[in-house]
Amino acid sequence: MNKGVLVVISGFSGAGKGTVIRELLKKYQNYALSVSVTTRDPRPGEIDGKHYFFRTKEEFQELIQKDELVEYAEYVENYYGTPRAYVEEQLEKGKDVILEIEIQGAMKVKEKNPEALFIFVTPPSMEELKRRLIGRGTESMEVINSRLLKAREEAQWMEHYDYLAINDTVEECVECMHQIIQSEHSRMSRNQEFIDKIRKE
Amino acid sequence: MNKGVLVVISGFSGAGKGTVIRELLKKYQNYALSVSVTTRDPRPGEIDGKHYFFRTKEEFQELIQKDELVEYAEYVENYYGTPRAYVEEQLEKGKDVILEIEIQGAMKVKEKNPEALFIFVTPPSMEELKRRLIGRGTESMEVINSRLLKAREEAQWMEHYDYLAINDTVEECVECMHQIIQSEHSRMSRNQEFIDKIRKE
Repeated sequence: MNKGVLVVISGFSGAGKGTVIRELLKKYQNYALSVSVTTRDPRPGEIDGKHYFFRTKEEFQELIQKDELVEYAEYVENYYGTPRAYVEEQLEKGKDVILEIEIQGAMKVKEKNPEALFIFVTPPSMEELKRRLIGRGTESMEVINSRLLKAREEAQWMEHYDYLAINDTVEECVECMHQIIQSEHSRMSRNQEFIDKIRKE
Repeated sequence: MNKGVLVVISGFSGAGKGTVIRELLKKYQNYALSVSVTTRDPRPGEIDGKHYFFRTKEEFQELIQKDELVEYAEYVENYYGTPRAYVEEQLEKGKDVILEIEIQGAMKVKEKNPEALFIFVTPPSMEELKRRLIGRGTESMEVINSRLLKAREEAQWMEHYDYLAINDTVEECVECMHQIIQSEHSRMSRNQEFIDKIRKE
């Protein structure tokens, strides 16, 4: 069996990444979501190993020192990271591992894993992004404007991604993303074993 | 509308490229087959502009001099080439243009069109290739062996292609190829216009 593909997904806040990824995992069986490790306390109902791997700050420091994290970041005095062992295990099983992560983290993953597949999710226009942020009804205009400003910064990084997934309707975007990831399995550089086999024959 | 993708397809003789391409064009409407220009005489039933563009040797020389061919080659004292104008016209219409061509020609196309998509078609094994060549029942063992020898040489070029399409069953291979080509439309480098648009907003 072929190894899975590590898929790194970023995009504007409000682009609908979360929904698209959830639907992708629901519709197709060959994906696994990367589970993050964190030092924050579990919230009610959160299960260790499913929602997060919950670790102490000392344990987290050890993970960093042993280079057991694909990437990590500090956020509101807590650490969040992607454990290499879990990702590797899923890839070895042939699962395509989805890593939803901010651009900074994604760029760190790229340094160490240039063979990963990088997808950037965007709404069809900035106008639509604004509409969606307002539509949520949960954010103040101040927060919305700061997100739009952030999106402007984030747009500078788009070329560092391999593919663009335009989230017009969720269903189409799921299909598009599935197609992109599955095609990646046919990439010549991922089939060295087959090439070697056919040359030996 | 987005420009089409120029798709260059090569593969072992006996891999079933022809069948896969024919079925791909039958099943999906967004493809156009590149029409070659040749100096050989039309055979009964062959239509100029459909099967080939039939030209005199002088006219062909002029096409070469004016750099109006994507690639060309001489074969049994006749010239065969790919007219740039026809390919460009189809791409501008948004069609994905399929160019079935030998490795040497493909490498020439790559020099001038590095943005083209290169797919290599192979049977699942050399054993299967041999079985298919024998199964045709039209070739002598001598011809079959020379084809297998040629396949060995051709296998050295596989890494120059972007994707590998394993033709196990025609139906699966058609789907795989369609998926690869359609994903290519989402490649970041093919969406510069969209990126510019979203940045301006």
